[in-house]
Amino acid sequence: MKQYEHGGNVYQPSPTGAWLDFSANINPMGLMPEVRQTLEEHLVDVVNYPDPDAHDLKAAIAKHYGIGEEYILPGNGAAELIYLFFQVRRLHRVLVPVPAFSDYERAARAARSVVQQFVLLSEHGFQPDLVKMAQTAAVTDCFVFGNPNNPTGTIFTRKELLPLLEQLRGGSQWMLVDESFMDFAEEREEATLLPLVKEFPHLVVIHSLTKFYAMPGLRLGFAACSPELVKELSAAKDVWNVNVLAQEAGAVALAHPEYDEATRKLVREERAFMQGRLSAMHGIRVLNGAANFLLLDVHGTGHSSSAIAEALRQHGILVRDCANYESLDAGWLRVAVRKHEENVKFLEQLEAIL
Amino acid sequence: MKQYEHGGNVYQPSPTGAWLDFSANINPMGLMPEVRQTLEEHLVDVVNYPDPDAHDLKAAIAKHYGIGEEYILPGNGAAELIYLFFQVRRLHRVLVPVPAFSDYERAARAARSVVQQFVLLSEHGFQPDLVKMAQTAAVTDCFVFGNPNNPTGTIFTRKELLPLLEQLRGGSQWMLVDESFMDFAEEREEATLLPLVKEFPHLVVIHSLTKFYAMPGLRLGFAACSPELVKELSAAKDVWNVNVLAQEAGAVALAHPEYDEATRKLVREERAFMQGRLSAMHGIRVLNGAANFLLLDVHGTGHSSSAIAEALRQHGILVRDCANYESLDAGWLRVAVRKHEENVKFLEQLEAIL
Repeated sequence: MKQYEHGGNVYQPSPTGAWLDFSANINPMGLMPEVRQTLEEHLVDVVNYPDPDAHDLKAAIAKHYGIGEEYILPGNGAAELIYLFFQVRRLHRVLVPVPAFSDYERAARAARSVVQQFVLLSEHGFQPDLVKMAQTAAVTDCFVFGNPNNPTGTIFTRKELLPLLEQLRGGSQWMLVDESFMDFAEEREEATLLPLVKEFPHLVVIHSLTKFYAMPGLRLGFAACSPELVKELSAAKDVWNVNVLAQEAGAVALAHPEYDEATRKLVREERAFMQGRLSAMHGIRVLNGAANFLLLDVHGTGHSSSAIAEALRQHGILVRDCANYESLDAGWLRVAVRKHEENVKFLEQLEAIL
Repeated sequence: MKQYEHGGNVYQPSPTGAWLDFSANINPMGLMPEVRQTLEEHLVDVVNYPDPDAHDLKAAIAKHYGIGEEYILPGNGAAELIYLFFQVRRLHRVLVPVPAFSDYERAARAARSVVQQFVLLSEHGFQPDLVKMAQTAAVTDCFVFGNPNNPTGTIFTRKELLPLLEQLRGGSQWMLVDESFMDFAEEREEATLLPLVKEFPHLVVIHSLTKFYAMPGLRLGFAACSPELVKELSAAKDVWNVNVLAQEAGAVALAHPEYDEATRKLVREERAFMQGRLSAMHGIRVLNGAANFLLLDVHGTGHSSSAIAEALRQHGILVRDCANYESLDAGWLRVAVRKHEENVKFLEQLEAIL
């Protein structure tokens, strides 16, 4: 059971009345006021079925990310689409670099695929030897990874991924890349594979819209892939999977670039601030992270990640104990980057504990 | 494409400004004020992930329907669970009595099952010979049907289903019954199979919560089945599939029996009213319906169902042209039972057209 536990579960009582949640990687700016207003206006519309064509939402995604609507399949969160892909494709052998979001493996296993792990080494900052990884991927049916990767925060550029992409040409192999944290990354323009879905029919890009737009409770994401796969995946789910409010919220959220820019500025500054303060703490090693979270190596502190997480929890602060990630142990914590005063509170509490 | 079109698509411009929608079978009482209030209060919670255990929702379902929580799997609408069941079980041969909700067949085909149809005859009011149906079902891996059935409105009691249920004993065969319209039926206590999921591990009851509680835009339903199957289905989807607002709305909706009773009274009275008026119209035969909709045989009118639907559409009224249902032709319309003044408007418009 523990194996597939996630962060962000704020549904247990907090000792301080409310949780300060560093365990879920949600945009610290919170819900966009325009989205909030749209939700209020469209509450009355829950009496109608969702638009089965998700017309406005698809148009907004296409415009924002510069891809054709025929390449887009909206989903009830990014996670739904990962499960759907594996159920539909029924691949024999799936390669997952670890540590990674556990649902890649869980979804592939649920579809009866054999999952093979490519272990990323902490001593290399979880940066793989890309040639070796491509060679290993070559003898599997699908290579799945997060870019940026969760929980390591590592990111690949398109150029770095070329050896892996070339393998997709003409073969039967698939590549599924989860770009759910890409919008937070400074490197996103050189890193996103979205422009390549036209060229590579076996490339699937999965993208959450609820982390960056702070609405994970609504569920919203999309897959970008060949129109043929869009049709195949669509045929294997009901037409109403994206609820009315998520459709409206997504269309509005994607039309406010000023929020996007402000988010990236906040995350860049606060991530640097946290990196500085955390690195100065005795026994903590901070990994370079491209997204809105940081992976901390706490082996040197003399405390286990679970002990630290539990001590923080006593003070109403949730962090992600990474002990249940494949290839990590009880010496790793993942913390979200939040607003300055919240980060200060977390840092002070952590210092007090250590 | 046309094959799997549904009712309830109000996202095209209406000639009268707003649609009067008789094509979707939604509770005419509309959204419960308590649900509306809960939605407003919980809008702020969309910044959090949904409760992966759906604790409050499951407790409310268990209490309302008198089943143990371990038998319950909440879903992003009833439809999600139908697709999930077929994807997970990968059955060879599936029997569907037709006409029926087209997603039974679509979901089974998406999971690469072979679908066999058992044709219900209009001259028998779509009531099957249950012994023959059981014999046909006996040589398949799964029997899937709606009770009450959509679009026919026919309903079976538990007693009538006994020959089919007995076949589930000890065998590998499955029965999936969709009770999404059961809450509207007067006969529900003698008809629901929910009390039998404990006894029959190969029985799956699917139940929508958005038709009866008028919130299809939110997406909410549940499966009731053996705890083993609950685990198996849970493992094949992400843990956040039911959004925050649907969870809150469901928990509140199920705790207001006065709304349930008022709904059944309204539907009973208005259905009888519509039956009377429609039967008096030249060339229209009204089938007996147990749910909140009526199937009309319009062959005798000299107009096709498509022509009548289009003429009503010109006046801002949507009905369900059943021409794309398996085993029906362009002589069948399905109309929802709505509020009195709306029903009168529809009846007058229909009379004018005929």
